[in-house]
Amino acid sequence: MPISGFPEWMPPQRIIEQNVVDTIRRTFELYGFAPLETRAVEPLDQLLRKGETSKEVYLLRRLQEDPASGGGDDALGLHFDLTVPFARFVTENAGRLHFPFRRYQIQKVWRGERPQEGRYREFLQADIDVVDRDTLPFHYDAEMPLVLADVFRSLPVPEPRIQVNNRKVCEGFYRGLGLSDTDQVLRTVDKLDKIGPEKVSALLVETAGASDAQAAACLALAGISAADGSFADRVRALGVSDPLLDEGLEELVRVVEASAEHAPGLVVADLRIARGLDYYTGTVYETQLRGYERFGSVCSGGRYENLASSGSERFPGVGISVGVSRLLGLLFGQDALSVSRQVPTCVVVALPSEERRRDCDRIASALRSRGIATEVAPSAAKFGKQIRFAERRGIPFVWFPGEPDTVKDIRSGDQVEADASTWLPPDGDLAPAVAAR
Amino acid sequence: MPISGFPEWMPPQRIIEQNVVDTIRRTFELYGFAPLETRAVEPLDQLLRKGETSKEVYLLRRLQEDPASGGGDDALGLHFDLTVPFARFVTENAGRLHFPFRRYQIQKVWRGERPQEGRYREFLQADIDVVDRDTLPFHYDAEMPLVLADVFRSLPVPEPRIQVNNRKVCEGFYRGLGLSDTDQVLRTVDKLDKIGPEKVSALLVETAGASDAQAAACLALAGISAADGSFADRVRALGVSDPLLDEGLEELVRVVEASAEHAPGLVVADLRIARGLDYYTGTVYETQLRGYERFGSVCSGGRYENLASSGSERFPGVGISVGVSRLLGLLFGQDALSVSRQVPTCVVVALPSEERRRDCDRIASALRSRGIATEVAPSAAKFGKQIRFAERRGIPFVWFPGEPDTVKDIRSGDQVEADASTWLPPDGDLAPAVAAR
Repeated sequence: MPISGFPEWMPPQRIIEQNVVDTIRRTFELYGFAPLETRAVEPLDQLLRKGETSKEVYLLRRLQEDPASGGGDDALGLHFDLTVPFARFVTENAGRLHFPFRRYQIQKVWRGERPQEGRYREFLQADIDVVDRDTLPFHYDAEMPLVLADVFRSLPVPEPRIQVNNRKVCEGFYRGLGLSDTDQVLRTVDKLDKIGPEKVSALLVETAGASDAQAAACLALAGISAADGSFADRVRALGVSDPLLDEGLEELVRVVEASAEHAPGLVVADLRIARGLDYYTGTVYETQLRGYERFGSVCSGGRYENLASSGSERFPGVGISVGVSRLLGLLFGQDALSVSRQVPTCVVVALPSEERRRDCDRIASALRSRGIATEVAPSAAKFGKQIRFAERRGIPFVWFPGEPDTVKDIRSGDQVEADASTWLPPDGDLAPAVAAR
Repeated sequence: MPISGFPEWMPPQRIIEQNVVDTIRRTFELYGFAPLETRAVEPLDQLLRKGETSKEVYLLRRLQEDPASGGGDDALGLHFDLTVPFARFVTENAGRLHFPFRRYQIQKVWRGERPQEGRYREFLQADIDVVDRDTLPFHYDAEMPLVLADVFRSLPVPEPRIQVNNRKVCEGFYRGLGLSDTDQVLRTVDKLDKIGPEKVSALLVETAGASDAQAAACLALAGISAADGSFADRVRALGVSDPLLDEGLEELVRVVEASAEHAPGLVVADLRIARGLDYYTGTVYETQLRGYERFGSVCSGGRYENLASSGSERFPGVGISVGVSRLLGLLFGQDALSVSRQVPTCVVVALPSEERRRDCDRIASALRSRGIATEVAPSAAKFGKQIRFAERRGIPFVWFPGEPDTVKDIRSGDQVEADASTWLPPDGDLAPAVAAR
């Protein structure tokens, strides 16, 4: 039986997923990120360091183990993201890594939450992070949206809208405005999409000690967005001044301007983005797909001044995480992606009789040795049935042994003489083709 | 801290692992196996169907859950192989699959065993299986070693010795010899490598009711191996006759002869191979690497007449499983593999000054757009330091912006004029190269 929250794709969807993961990986590698995989488990105390995620953790226990012994300090749990394991890996191996260390990590993560639409208990994430000792130059913040833009431009998905903000802008602005509990303001403004401006305004007055005018200013800030550096003037026009605000604006302008040159229109400064519950300290990123805005972000991240620390050592970082399962779940749900066939197979070698199987195997070998995925028909059924075997799976070509051999494109019906040591399919038929529907 | 039994590779080893997995996957796809991934968890009762593996299972429980409720019928455990989940997937989705169904599956599995040398608690497996309804033609048994031979020929590993046997040969022979508890004989003969022929012989007499002559005949059978069909005559020369033995010999000859043509010398019939504890019913496979025989099999599998069943439906199958972590653990342990660099990066663009970063980013973009993995130097340090940044990571090229730009192969010191829109590295430098050391 299916288990709620643990999605399983059928092979055609898995082909699409692999294609998407391959594309993401290729883009990450083009930017020089090195591959890393960490174990699926972490000690429970590592997983609970941040406290607030305790309810999401799956604990492990061996079947033969005393149930009472589970949950102790040495208990193991499945990781619920790739950031906590990465931070642990960096401190554990700092002496063996070259810094700045750029790594990508594409793995399953698990969260023991109640499943609901679009939420999984097991899902695939694709992360990149750059981490350094002591300080990490700011230019890496500006690189993240470039990578993301290249990832999404290579995928058969709707156009992304990569939204960037900077915590320093918000905090500096709130502080300059005279509001001291900036975390509470941030958390409240983060609810804008869910509860609307009136309620946010009321909550700011109730819970963050804001006057009506201060609440209005916070909402005005959150209303600003632009695909170029012009947002900075609009913020300054609100009349608030603070050194942290200036620093944040300067940083955010750098990110947006670098992005505007590389990927015009894809990246916008959006001053409502808060990523409320995370540990980011500067730049933050979110990504929505056009037409799928109501489903929220499919890729997010940010800068953390203290990704990891070990004794007196500090490791600042900046990174993003693509929610691969989330992205595909949304697109599969709308039937938005197609694949040209259900198997890697490009050619089926038809089998005239069971006695000829060795000959057919030789043809298949010759084709495979030149990179053409080939199967021999399962049995010496009538050719019509063998062609239907290919058709049902979307395999484009059937090869008929003979003197000479012929190969038939079963979509067009075209049949031509062919030699297994030289014939090539059109490039587009070599592998299953994934496209937007 | 490292956790015993949960290996983590450093990035250079992870590059090797990815390279190996990519190669395995490419070979599987050339044979038309479709990709599948199943969830990491199965209901406990699924995992315990075979009974004997109960001690190996990791159970899951949510941190906030009542510990007493764990372990019930609806408890979830991590899969300990890829066969159990695949069998469950097939029966669950039989109506939506095309049979014969060929799938590959490359995933982590978990076993809660005491870790020991070469044994992991978390490890990567790469499986292929062909499964059909009711009956599965025998020729698929002959295909498995061909796939394996192609996998190993494409990997930078020592030459494999793919050993094949057939349960029907052993069972028929023991029966024809007059021994009725053939399972016990099989289990005992399977200990040959561990305890030697004298003790096996004594055990056969003690526990399987064999006479000394019968025990000697069993050992004689186990001593036969050949890279061609000649083993059949040697078996017949032992003077035992039984219809199941004849059937098994005929099958085994077909497998060995097909293999001998495709991959001369790699596949041998070895009549001591038993795969004692598994549910195989015909052909069985094991694979050892030359020089690593003492570590046992890195890839095994076989034919099961009843991979899965659902009501009156039966699904016979044949498959093999490559122990990727086990294979790499062995080879890493002997330092037998090398990789040409520690990062995907092929080119570092040197940064003359921080003001020139945008220009350097443009050069990097131009190179990436043509598939060349590129990083811009982290800071405008002296060029000597920037070159060392590349050197330490094994990155072969440093690009110097100028009029004109130049690119330097830092291994040879050769520096030439270059244009980012046309320059290409030698093919062998495009990606990290993995090789036997």
